[in-house]
Amino acid sequence: MHMQRYVGVVGPGEATPEQRGIARQVGGLLAGRRATVVTGGLGGVMAAASRGAIEAGGTTLGLLPGDDRSEGNPYLTVVIPTGLGEMRNALLVRSCDAIVAVGGSWGTMSEIALAVRTGVPVVAIGGWRMPAGGVLDVESPAEAVECLHALLWRKEP
Amino acid sequence: MHMQRYVGVVGPGEATPEQRGIARQVGGLLAGRRATVVTGGLGGVMAAASRGAIEAGGTTLGLLPGDDRSEGNPYLTVVIPTGLGEMRNALLVRSCDAIVAVGGSWGTMSEIALAVRTGVPVVAIGGWRMPAGGVLDVESPAEAVECLHALLWRKEP
Amino acid sequence: MHMQRYVGVVGPGEATPEQRGIARQVGGLLAGRRATVVTGGLGGVMAAASRGAIEAGGTTLGLLPGDDRSEGNPYLTVVIPTGLGEMRNALLVRSCDAIVAVGGSWGTMSEIALAVRTGVPVVAIGGWRMPAGGVLDVESPAEAVECLHALLWRKEP
Amino acid sequence: MHMQRYVGVVGPGEATPEQRGIARQVGGLLAGRRATVVTGGLGGVMAAASRGAIEAGGTTLGLLPGDDRSEGNPYLTVVIPTGLGEMRNALLVRSCDAIVAVGGSWGTMSEIALAVRTGVPVVAIGGWRMPAGGVLDVESPAEAVECLHALLWRKEP
Repeated sequence: MHMQRYVGVVGPGEATPEQRGIARQVGGLLAGRRATVVTGGLGGVMAAASRGAIEAGGTTLGLLPGDDRSEGNPYLTVVIPTGLGEMRNALLVRSCDAIVAVGGSWGTMSEIALAVRTGVPVVAIGGWRMPAGGVLDVESPAEAVECLHALLWRKEP
Repeated sequence: MHMQRYVGVVGPGEATPEQRGIARQVGGLLAGRRATVVTGGLGGVMAAASRGAIEAGGTTLGLLPGDDRSEGNPYLTVVIPTGLGEMRNALLVRSCDAIVAVGGSWGTMSEIALAVRTGVPVVAIGGWRMPAGGVLDVESPAEAVECLHALLWRKEP
Repeated sequence: MHMQRYVGVVGPGEATPEQRGIARQVGGLLAGRRATVVTGGLGGVMAAASRGAIEAGGTTLGLLPGDDRSEGNPYLTVVIPTGLGEMRNALLVRSCDAIVAVGGSWGTMSEIALAVRTGVPVVAIGGWRMPAGGVLDVESPAEAVECLHALLWRKEP
Repeated sequence: MHMQRYVGVVGPGEATPEQRGIARQVGGLLAGRRATVVTGGLGGVMAAASRGAIEAGGTTLGLLPGDDRSEGNPYLTVVIPTGLGEMRNALLVRSCDAIVAVGGSWGTMSEIALAVRTGVPVVAIGGWRMPAGGVLDVESPAEAVECLHALLWRKEP
């Protein structure tokens, strides 16, 4: 049986149109690979990635910081009002087999750092300059998903 | 728009055939009402309720105590390896609009108690004798879902 | 070296004068045994147990549900605004080598259930009737601490 | 009444002698200001800061990632085996009124990022180059504690 993969797409809630476009493409490509797309459940990059995945027939999970489910964006198969505040960033990383970061913010950086710290692969598109090695910089959604393919899917027999 | 409801089905991982039968029926009836079924993701009552929901075309969420996704039962749309241990019982309660308890155990009791404490309605079938008021005892899966209907769906305009 | 023991004292935030009196004695006796007293950091049984421990020269830890440290009672050596809501009940149980329950409430029951579930010994004074075995019922603060002594301290070489 | 302040000292568990020396001084100076020193409870920068605080007569709190209290270093007034893994980094940040970072690592970066994200002031000595504004770079333990003084203590009436 093919093990289901979970890929987080992280990035700012206040995103530029370009970042939202990239996130939506990433979500769509991940759904095409049958990965479940995990986000923080709010707007910006989170909503765009979830939307891309849903539009491609995929499954999405949103882990909200607050305790009100109605704050989730409309593109979530399952939405959890964790009530954990920013501690949910750590739950998100733990829920994922890999992370794609689109754009930069301190919240995004916390997720990247927790991922590298705990051995979850991170691919970044157009974000902040990283202060140390451990993150794979790519140029496009297609390249991001190619890298993930090599990391996640090919290692299966 | 119809707000999606999330209903937890909690009960022992080591369940009797009767408890598993009840849990599977509850899962199926909840899926018939289009509720997402939330469990602790393991065996016994958790697997049976998830199976019933999936067989009825529903959506299921499993919140595992450990950090290994492969420990989840095969009936989960989304499975989160929370790594929280029994602390995930509290996350499960927070994720739900109501709880159905099938059978009794100390883990189940912790979920019932957290639910009553935080105002999440609890319906119980065939479990432990409760030490105080706050839990609705019912006789059958059908009665359980009728009660939930009154609690969760009728309050919508 | 003598390993420091942590004992939780749990019970209602709205407590009777008798419950507060018992909790204060329990706190004092635990401090006399050099145990750190752990509570949920608020009023009622929590404040009384902490007060008893501090008055006896002991150390206390309060794990608040909210994120405002000033909500802690005045008898806490260390107070953590966990922001976890009732999920902090699970963190409290995990922080303790044993639990003393004074009086009953659904919050208290959640802590007792999580403790029994995870193998943390529980001693109860004057609380709810337990629905199953696993909790040691005692009559007085002195008896409670005697039982804990047998459980926690004697097993050391 | 003077509100007790909690200051986290974060940094690598595998620290250089210079980093440990700085952390120990920071811990001592914070204890001199009567702040409780909060760390992740393990070795390197965490142990050194705790040691400095204890040597100066202060109070320390260690939030361990694992669930075994004996993994805590010997310089902790209160030690909590959170069992949260790296999710405890978020609990640490939430527990603190300010953070001092000594040296750099991905774990340290996760704490810095969560702190800036949630409005907890961060002062850094000799760590990684930060990818964005929001962290106050200082040259010495004395300067770090001066900055914190301005941030935390002076705002009281």
